[in-house]
Amino acid sequence: MDSFSDVTPVLCLFEGVATGAADGYARVTRRPAATLVHLGPGLANGWANLHNARRAHSPIVNIVGDHPVSHRLLDPPLNSDIDSLAASVGGWHARFSSASDVAHLTAQAVSAAYGPPGRSATLLLSSDVAWGDLDSKSTPWPLATPSPITAPDDAMITRALASLRSTRSALVVGGDAVTAEQLELAQRICAVTSSRLIMETFPAIFDHGAGVVSPERMIYLSDFALAQLADLETMVLVGTSPPVPAFAYRNGPERIIPEGCEVIELALPGTDTRSALEALVDGTGAARLVLEAHDVAPVPSGPLTTQIVAQAVAATMPEGLIISDESITSGLHLYGATQFSPPHRVMSLTGNSLGFGLPAALGAAQARQGRVLALEADGSMMYTPQALWSMAREGLDVTVVALSNRGYAIVELELRRVHQPLEGATSQRLVELDEPTMDLAGVARALGVPSVRVTTGDELVDALRRSYATPGPMFIEAVLPKGLN
Amino acid sequence: MDSFSDVTPVLCLFEGVATGAADGYARVTRRPAATLVHLGPGLANGWANLHNARRAHSPIVNIVGDHPVSHRLLDPPLNSDIDSLAASVGGWHARFSSASDVAHLTAQAVSAAYGPPGRSATLLLSSDVAWGDLDSKSTPWPLATPSPITAPDDAMITRALASLRSTRSALVVGGDAVTAEQLELAQRICAVTSSRLIMETFPAIFDHGAGVVSPERMIYLSDFALAQLADLETMVLVGTSPPVPAFAYRNGPERIIPEGCEVIELALPGTDTRSALEALVDGTGAARLVLEAHDVAPVPSGPLTTQIVAQAVAATMPEGLIISDESITSGLHLYGATQFSPPHRVMSLTGNSLGFGLPAALGAAQARQGRVLALEADGSMMYTPQALWSMAREGLDVTVVALSNRGYAIVELELRRVHQPLEGATSQRLVELDEPTMDLAGVARALGVPSVRVTTGDELVDALRRSYATPGPMFIEAVLPKGLN
Repeated sequence: MDSFSDVTPVLCLFEGVATGAADGYARVTRRPAATLVHLGPGLANGWANLHNARRAHSPIVNIVGDHPVSHRLLDPPLNSDIDSLAASVGGWHARFSSASDVAHLTAQAVSAAYGPPGRSATLLLSSDVAWGDLDSKSTPWPLATPSPITAPDDAMITRALASLRSTRSALVVGGDAVTAEQLELAQRICAVTSSRLIMETFPAIFDHGAGVVSPERMIYLSDFALAQLADLETMVLVGTSPPVPAFAYRNGPERIIPEGCEVIELALPGTDTRSALEALVDGTGAARLVLEAHDVAPVPSGPLTTQIVAQAVAATMPEGLIISDESITSGLHLYGATQFSPPHRVMSLTGNSLGFGLPAALGAAQARQGRVLALEADGSMMYTPQALWSMAREGLDVTVVALSNRGYAIVELELRRVHQPLEGATSQRLVELDEPTMDLAGVARALGVPSVRVTTGDELVDALRRSYATPGPMFIEAVLPKGLN
Repeated sequence: MDSFSDVTPVLCLFEGVATGAADGYARVTRRPAATLVHLGPGLANGWANLHNARRAHSPIVNIVGDHPVSHRLLDPPLNSDIDSLAASVGGWHARFSSASDVAHLTAQAVSAAYGPPGRSATLLLSSDVAWGDLDSKSTPWPLATPSPITAPDDAMITRALASLRSTRSALVVGGDAVTAEQLELAQRICAVTSSRLIMETFPAIFDHGAGVVSPERMIYLSDFALAQLADLETMVLVGTSPPVPAFAYRNGPERIIPEGCEVIELALPGTDTRSALEALVDGTGAARLVLEAHDVAPVPSGPLTTQIVAQAVAATMPEGLIISDESITSGLHLYGATQFSPPHRVMSLTGNSLGFGLPAALGAAQARQGRVLALEADGSMMYTPQALWSMAREGLDVTVVALSNRGYAIVELELRRVHQPLEGATSQRLVELDEPTMDLAGVARALGVPSVRVTTGDELVDALRRSYATPGPMFIEAVLPKGLN
């Protein structure tokens, strides 16, 4: 670390912060960051955010320190079934067998991480390899060689075009296809073929705001999503897989595909979405679109609601903001409210595993492409609050808005859907985050991040503006009414 | 939960808190607690403390919510390779296949958790099983049936006795054999056979203090441990496995067994240590011991050092205290200083995986057997600080002393041992916990635990005494000189 100044090490207090930061960095830059963790427990602590990264197809290289094989046979205290654990992460994994292996296998790991689609590449590095000698230092270092991405063939394009033209159809986009440029291509196709343009529920990162096509977004709750898609005879997928409900229900839908609807997998994740969309544009002769400009709703005032939070974010954001969105039920209004805000990017919770938002904001800010806004909820924030300290230490331009509703509202929501409302005081207490109420601003302050608590729209707008004008991190605790808002 | 008042649910903000708490509960009560976690990410977040629990042979039952098989085939967002992950935890694991399975398989899981030796039993519970119907409600519920423990046979006893009598020997005890009663038996044997009594480095839980035999303790650092054992011709193990260095070193010892020393595995973990020790006592005719009483060192004053912290703990502790010790390098003096304090129990970091201390204190306090003292370091505490909120919520009698040395001193120590001192500012910064300095007392206060910061022996003694006299949790940040003390 002291010899190679082109490697920037960032100390994290918990491994889940490191893996989530690597995911955020990868989403913003489309390049892998490396995590360095220690043995089975270190990898396990990072596992949940590697799960989110897997669902985002983020390239990441994990280097996991391990004991020498001879020492593992003696079963020392930190020994564990690390091979099964590494396998359970998914993606690619390998073990170095000697120091001479390291350059070659690391280049392979970086190539594997790039995919396409992107993935975790996990390298088990035992200490005897680390202290081993190189056979030769004259060999040139091997370089990572990302594989080319494939484009759909003409037959697929023709078939997709025919269905888009002749049936009640939707172009469903996600993954690589939700950049401003590709969204514009997609919208042109839809305009000419009278199709709907629908974005997947949780893209890894998408462009949004003024001048960017803003598709309807697939609804999270599967029965509502099915109603949303009910009239479709064809879905053409570009950059995304067939939609699946987050959870199964006793009498609920198995898939989010209307009865009789044909699904055309034109470009699955990891294939060339831009070529697919360009081919469709060529086939339709669709002309460039002119998007209408609209004013953003005025700055809100009064006691905070989820609607007012969304309006405050929309009314204040600077151009180029990167939003790390883990606001769960409290963030429902965000997408609509920010449609005409300055152009920005949004990262979402691809793998539904909590603890993503603060670490991803840390990693995204480390890419130094502009300010990051982390939209957190109290329940999700408390999975990985340690990320705040690293933001302070690195002096990163991150604004955190932590929406405090003193409850796991998503659990209440899911229980209501299956008609299992919480009936007694004992069970109710298990989805409530009070007694005691956490001082979220106090947590941030104790970890070195300046913080403030707000209860009205005016205060939130003021705090957001101040944070955008001030270098370094700032934490805003936004107090909402209790429970599901 | 609302219908069964003999189940006490405790909400934890992070799964690693739940698994660590189950471990602490099991160590204190020798009975399993259950954890309830959600899908792969939930189990992964709890993995590191299940690793510590595995090394402690703690019985734990993990219930992991999962998708129905039909839904897993569609690969929904929260789907993962949960079977590989459950296997990597170690211990016993199974998947319910229907509602009729549940009672039977749960009883099996509890039996499996009891062992001997104790272990994690992990049950994958998919939602279709949870909403399924029982075939019959008339069947009596099956009960868990722990297996009997086995005692060593006469030949082993005879062989161990002969070696203890005729060679330079040590009785090495750990696991079940470090209760006050069994330590007394062990010491009697050693007195008659002129053997040394040595305790393993990190027992799951051991009795200590006035009236309790206090063996020499095996040193953590393997080269020092080898020097400690150098004159031995025989080691007789009771309740513990052959000692293994925590880490391998380039030219370091592979095992902690002197050249030519015979190791007699008289009673490995999970076998009947008390019968083994009683048989040795019978064979030697060793008489009961009278332990000399000594005064505890007087209350210390002056700026805090690790020595003064140990003396302050020793001078103030109430009888029956349960110590959760994750003080790492800062806790070196504790064992010696507390030898003549009122009788107490100590839980130690069996699996060397950080983040154990606060969760284990939470679970131990939930057993309601008296006050718990968690001795934490800043680096280790920040793995699972969420445990503090649950302590506040449940009003548990836990005193936390967080030793702040603003660094990962254990990493510095290990690097010095391999003659790889940190040479540059970049690498040095990766083992330092300042810039910014964390306000540990502020973290605790924000999570609902009354807290105080102390810098001298007098202040620490005063804060400890106040906490022991006050119901509910209290947090004491003890500021030490920076770095390895």
